[in-house]
Amino acid sequence: MTFKHKLSSIVQKNNSLVCVGLDSDLGKIPKHLKSQSDPIFAFNKAIIDSTYDLVCAYKPNSAFYEAYGLEGIAQLKKTFDYINEKYPEIPTVLDAKRADIGNTNEGYARFVFDYMGADSITLHPYLGIETLDSFLKRLDKEVFILCKTSNPGAGELQDLEVGKKPLYQIVAEHVVEKWNYNGNCALVVGAPYPADLNIVRRIAKNLIILIPGIGIQGGKVEDVVKAGVDANGQNAIINSSRGIIFASSEADFAQRTREEAEKLRNEINKFRVTI
Amino acid sequence: MTFKHKLSSIVQKNNSLVCVGLDSDLGKIPKHLKSQSDPIFAFNKAIIDSTYDLVCAYKPNSAFYEAYGLEGIAQLKKTFDYINEKYPEIPTVLDAKRADIGNTNEGYARFVFDYMGADSITLHPYLGIETLDSFLKRLDKEVFILCKTSNPGAGELQDLEVGKKPLYQIVAEHVVEKWNYNGNCALVVGAPYPADLNIVRRIAKNLIILIPGIGIQGGKVEDVVKAGVDANGQNAIINSSRGIIFASSEADFAQRTREEAEKLRNEINKFRVTI
Repeated sequence: MTFKHKLSSIVQKNNSLVCVGLDSDLGKIPKHLKSQSDPIFAFNKAIIDSTYDLVCAYKPNSAFYEAYGLEGIAQLKKTFDYINEKYPEIPTVLDAKRADIGNTNEGYARFVFDYMGADSITLHPYLGIETLDSFLKRLDKEVFILCKTSNPGAGELQDLEVGKKPLYQIVAEHVVEKWNYNGNCALVVGAPYPADLNIVRRIAKNLIILIPGIGIQGGKVEDVVKAGVDANGQNAIINSSRGIIFASSEADFAQRTREEAEKLRNEINKFRVTI
Repeated sequence: MTFKHKLSSIVQKNNSLVCVGLDSDLGKIPKHLKSQSDPIFAFNKAIIDSTYDLVCAYKPNSAFYEAYGLEGIAQLKKTFDYINEKYPEIPTVLDAKRADIGNTNEGYARFVFDYMGADSITLHPYLGIETLDSFLKRLDKEVFILCKTSNPGAGELQDLEVGKKPLYQIVAEHVVEKWNYNGNCALVVGAPYPADLNIVRRIAKNLIILIPGIGIQGGKVEDVVKAGVDANGQNAIINSSRGIIFASSEADFAQRTREEAEKLRNEINKFRVTI
């Protein structure tokens, strides 16, 4: 089964475009979990068990786990193992933002797809398509290429004009026209830039777009949904991390996260009209 | 002590611009090491012990370790620990090619600098300077920004014309003019592109340039050295990985690697004239 099919099934089943970003910073998780042996995994497990019927994907960001070395990375693996065993119908994104030259990317593909068991990865575009075969040849996996990122300074390079178009549009065009030869490329466009998201959606009519940066980073739900979904009101994965998973630092944290995820799902669905 | 000072001392002491790239692919290391408990680390240790007086830096590429999950990453840490304990005068680069948004990069900085104990990291430029403070604030560490990479298809995005200049030159200019406010930015330019390296050296007169891709990837030593060094014949780190570390797959592998490293050092020094 391809990532696209997996995503499309769960979007329908859970009626949701919400991706929960498991940016599970040990410094921010509820205190009562910190005495456990695997506190980050315990936190993730509770979040996952309380949101599995409200989401279309989970997206751990590797940096929050690597920060704690082997112990953190072991808990990242436990998180993927748990999702893959208990909720195999929910697609996963390992937000690892990798990309190296050709023979080296094979190592990252093995880490992300084989060792972790993630369904997809995020990648930097700077080295070009010639380096990406290790990822693209994995037909059951999806490859999310950074196009316009969610940070305030994203435009420094991404908005530079190449000919008469900003670089991020050129990236979107290259992905659609050249990189997507196996049909498993997707794009990342940040929620704080709905006008740019709208342009990317016109370039990439049928691609999945991962949209981080809703909420705390400043993206408005209505603008983002209207600009980001495809003609069928689908193929957009709208990610919230801090705004959802740190809704409470008390014993009720998983329940509060569930409420936030449900609220976001419903708000997204209000604007998810098809055209 | 800054990275620049550490590098400058060892360049003088060992009379060398050679960086040994520890791309220690488990599939390629000598068979007799594979029965050991930490074969990748055993391989690296032998290589390091046989080259420490011939090099100016070691550069493990994270992908070759991550490929084996926790076991591989543990051996990467053992490698850094070994260098830091036994050869603390030799600077290290963790070639990890990371880069995420601001609050997330803190996790990568902790992994690379604090957990691994690397002296420097390689980073993608695509997200812009606004995201890099977690790295740049570490005044004793060096940050290598990918400018023109060594792969054959590097030009797909990196050579796109922005105004009348290719993107990689814009990246070099931004790094020199804006990103280097703490004086700890360096650049990566691939050996297969000596003309571009020459241009980057003119833009970045005093920055360290890491030059991968000598040998197997096609860069010629004479062209690379003449284009890459600064006015004092310094501030260039010329990396060879596969061409050096896999010189032999027999019991003599460490000695053969030493011979290759020495040959490369001497060839580089032939062309290391100052101007």
